Amino acid sequence: MKKNLIDIRDFSIAEVDRLISLAKDIIAHGERYASACHGKKLATLFFEPSTRTRLSFESAMMELGGNVIGFSSASSSSASKGESVADTAQVISCFADIIAMRHPKEGAPMVASLNASIPVINAGDGGHNHPTQTLTDLLTISRQKGRLNNMVVGCCGDLKYGRTVHSLVSAMSRYEGVKFVFIAPDELRMPVGLRKELDEAGVPYVETTSLEEVLPELDVLYMTRVQQERFADVEQYNRLKDSYILNTDKLAHAKADMIIMHPLPRVNEISVAVDKDPRACYFQQVLNGKFIRMALILTLLGLAPEVADSDVIGDDVARYEEAVVNAKEHGFHCASGRCITSVEQELPQAFFKTENGYRCIYCDRKPE
Amino acid sequence: MKKNLIDIRDFSIAEVDRLISLAKDIIAHGERYASACHGKKLATLFFEPSTRTRLSFESAMMELGGNVIGFSSASSSSASKGESVADTAQVISCFADIIAMRHPKEGAPMVASLNASIPVINAGDGGHNHPTQTLTDLLTISRQKGRLNNMVVGCCGDLKYGRTVHSLVSAMSRYEGVKFVFIAPDELRMPVGLRKELDEAGVPYVETTSLEEVLPELDVLYMTRVQQERFADVEQYNRLKDSYILNTDKLAHAKADMIIMHPLPRVNEISVAVDKDPRACYFQQVLNGKFIRMALILTLLGLAPEVADSDVIGDDVARYEEAVVNAKEHGFHCASGRCITSVEQELPQAFFKTENGYRCIYCDRKPE
Amino acid sequence: MKKNLIDIRDFSIAEVDRLISLAKDIIAHGERYASACHGKKLATLFFEPSTRTRLSFESAMMELGGNVIGFSSASSSSASKGESVADTAQVISCFADIIAMRHPKEGAPMVASLNASIPVINAGDGGHNHPTQTLTDLLTISRQKGRLNNMVVGCCGDLKYGRTVHSLVSAMSRYEGVKFVFIAPDELRMPVGLRKELDEAGVPYVETTSLEEVLPELDVLYMTRVQQERFADVEQYNRLKDSYILNTDKLAHAKADMIIMHPLPRVNEISVAVDKDPRACYFQQVLNGKFIRMALILTLLGLAPEVADSDVIGDDVARYEEAVVNAKEHGFHCASGRCITSVEQELPQAFFKTENGYRCIYCDRKPE
Repeated sequence: MKKNLIDIRDFSIAEVDRLISLAKDIIAHGERYASACHGKKLATLFFEPSTRTRLSFESAMMELGGNVIGFSSASSSSASKGESVADTAQVISCFADIIAMRHPKEGAPMVASLNASIPVINAGDGGHNHPTQTLTDLLTISRQKGRLNNMVVGCCGDLKYGRTVHSLVSAMSRYEGVKFVFIAPDELRMPVGLRKELDEAGVPYVETTSLEEVLPELDVLYMTRVQQERFADVEQYNRLKDSYILNTDKLAHAKADMIIMHPLPRVNEISVAVDKDPRACYFQQVLNGKFIRMALILTLLGLAPEVADSDVIGDDVARYEEAVVNAKEHGFHCASGRCITSVEQELPQAFFKTENGYRCIYCDRKPE
Repeated sequence: MKKNLIDIRDFSIAEVDRLISLAKDIIAHGERYASACHGKKLATLFFEPSTRTRLSFESAMMELGGNVIGFSSASSSSASKGESVADTAQVISCFADIIAMRHPKEGAPMVASLNASIPVINAGDGGHNHPTQTLTDLLTISRQKGRLNNMVVGCCGDLKYGRTVHSLVSAMSRYEGVKFVFIAPDELRMPVGLRKELDEAGVPYVETTSLEEVLPELDVLYMTRVQQERFADVEQYNRLKDSYILNTDKLAHAKADMIIMHPLPRVNEISVAVDKDPRACYFQQVLNGKFIRMALILTLLGLAPEVADSDVIGDDVARYEEAVVNAKEHGFHCASGRCITSVEQELPQAFFKTENGYRCIYCDRKPE
Repeated sequence: MKKNLIDIRDFSIAEVDRLISLAKDIIAHGERYASACHGKKLATLFFEPSTRTRLSFESAMMELGGNVIGFSSASSSSASKGESVADTAQVISCFADIIAMRHPKEGAPMVASLNASIPVINAGDGGHNHPTQTLTDLLTISRQKGRLNNMVVGCCGDLKYGRTVHSLVSAMSRYEGVKFVFIAPDELRMPVGLRKELDEAGVPYVETTSLEEVLPELDVLYMTRVQQERFADVEQYNRLKDSYILNTDKLAHAKADMIIMHPLPRVNEISVAVDKDPRACYFQQVLNGKFIRMALILTLLGLAPEVADSDVIGDDVARYEEAVVNAKEHGFHCASGRCITSVEQELPQAFFKTENGYRCIYCDRKPE
């Protein structure tokens, strides 16, 4: 059965741990993998530009001995001719062996995965999911701290719109002994849904508006960028963007072995002077991003050394078809303008059942 | 002598058949060709975007073990600095071994072929020629039906502006026992010039406005997209675009072994529900497009196994120079705004003689 | 120590001569180098489009057996998200082994070289430096004339804004017995600074407005394009652009072994009819550009056969830090809107001392 990575929750803890182990083996013995993907092709389908993520995938594939085709923005693709994501996925399946897709609409990579005959990796769908960033972060914490459990993880900055931090919290909350500290202005607090999830899972967290106050407690400090494109109101952005800046003065109060992470690009939320501090790990994150993507590509192509058959990902198609039936039966409709269904009217509405009610299978929002 | 593919009519039936045979051998024994182009480079010069065609060429070259350089739109090229196509062709000849060029102006790839020291493939020049699509279609029919002669070929949709269907009709009319059925609204009928060609060659065809009426007779149904960019009048487009949609209801009346083809991308002229019908061949077409391009690249690079010297393509340069003399003698001038001569004033006017009078060598239009 | 090529003056005559020798060996024995960069990656970071330069680098890397990643314009990169050049350089160091950067702001590649852990090649920074073009020109003269000394070099066209010609004059003036003839309208004379440099170094030159008058004396004629984008005033451009056109009539008066060079793209400053003259070398320049870039990549990656340790480039970082101190002490500030400091406010002002006073380390302009 074909495997995909659309949402980090598609992978069990055991699967994540196996990816991390494989990435570490690649780091230690890169030469053993230098021809692993010889004759294979990765298609990087970037419907919006993201140089770092795209080049990370491309260098990963090349270091495995594979080739790359694709496009780096919608303007240089045929998307303007009105082709559906489903058709694009089927077409690209004729040209490549695996797809990495970034798309401005939520759920687009999932639609691709259901129609492609080759594995699909979500390289970011709007403000929704970006699972390879989360895998990158987990590998970084694992390498730098030697563990993924029993630690205090601080998340600072834009916790409302920052999808990378949502995914990281969701993924880290599955490990034992992890406590979270959420540092954000009131306007950019961690969303209530995610806090509720933590409450229900019994994962401890505290919220604060002061970075300096909590800094001495942290084992990991995950800084995020306050992105202008997430704000409807420019003034609100300008007032808040400088509030949570990390500089060398503040760092004096942090633990000697705390690690500083950031998904990049940064603007000024981490002062350049911090780069020389040995606790700064954000450029190591970039390097780890390449290695975890190598591990992921190998795994999804079925070329990883020890993947047991029992670990194949569940039947996505069956789940999807059930969700389509749910939508029809209940007359559900997704009203989000960010969802792929808002631009592709032929796509069926589809809602899966959760403990908290039905959710759109493309963008995880509640039905109308 | 250097070979190019600018117009499908540059190739004899024997040459087309040899390409199809080579493509079939590649399909059967891909591993034998996996290093055939090792150390060779394809330049994809796309002055306008066409993701599908570009990625088809790129994956073809990579599956032959070769490399790819190029650009995917004029905005990311130096074209804005006013360089002529002729100079670009000479420059690229220093970097690559073969060129695939797409250009919005008719005749541009021909100009490139006359100035490059390496083979040039026309990957689409405006609404003019797109010979690798035609080769793709021929390979598909040959593989699916087991023959290219003795069949009824229906063409449906935009027969006025659809260059793929013009080329296919032109190519198929050379085989014995082929009958055409043209299905289009009055506004989008097959051009009179092409109908006249068929009349003169004694190739039978009928015209109709009703898809349902003729469906039971067809061995091949070639659907085409009604493209908005071909219409000056948006209202006319909106009125017509849904007229010729293929759905599962209509298909019930078709032969069990009819094949459904489409050059893609489709918008809604073929209902998504048709995709699951075993007669739907449009995604196989995509795959065949890659294989025929592999065969073409090998052949033009002189790497195909059995290409006799007697099959080299005629002396294009001599024909061109004669056409330049014709234009001077008669004071001919091409008035088409779609022709490459409309933007490159230094290019000589050039007209070749046909049974129906003189034609512009770049865009095939009559002189003024 | 890591090597870079930011300014042609970074290389000694001995180093330039060694690159030229290596390029000639590559031309003679290409097969020996076909796998020299196997497993290595070049990143082409083109913040503004330049198809010729980019494809020259890419084909060079591929002919060495290496791979290429990158982007071809700022719009398909993350630059719009406000990332600094310094951060981009650190990120790309995780993905590639060597960088070729083109940027509209002067000094940007130098900033990259100071922050990247891998070698950086300046592929053009605004109107400032373009050292690989100069190396291309030197290789061409060396191959065509058999020497780089004892000759009369004519430079014609836009000598005010033409950076390629400034670099070439600067580089050629280091060889013995070279005399320059500068042919330009009064509005586009060679800048006073460069003329002063020649005066001080005792290098002979003459200035004239008439191409025809001096043509018989020249061993090399370097034509340049009058580029519209360098003019604030369109009318001035239109009045001047056709003034210095080379055609076959004028060429009748030139030496039989004179060579005609041009950095391309040309518009109409060299008539197409000149292309067939054996003295026309501008397309050979393109080919030489690929070969010298192969030599440069090999050398900067430490893969060239005979590079003595004594030739490593001086301590750029120390020079940079000294320049930062200079700026602070004197309160120097660069006021040029073309300088990278005009868009990246966090970059420190930095000025190095020359015989003619202090100069901005990024763009070579005087402080305010």
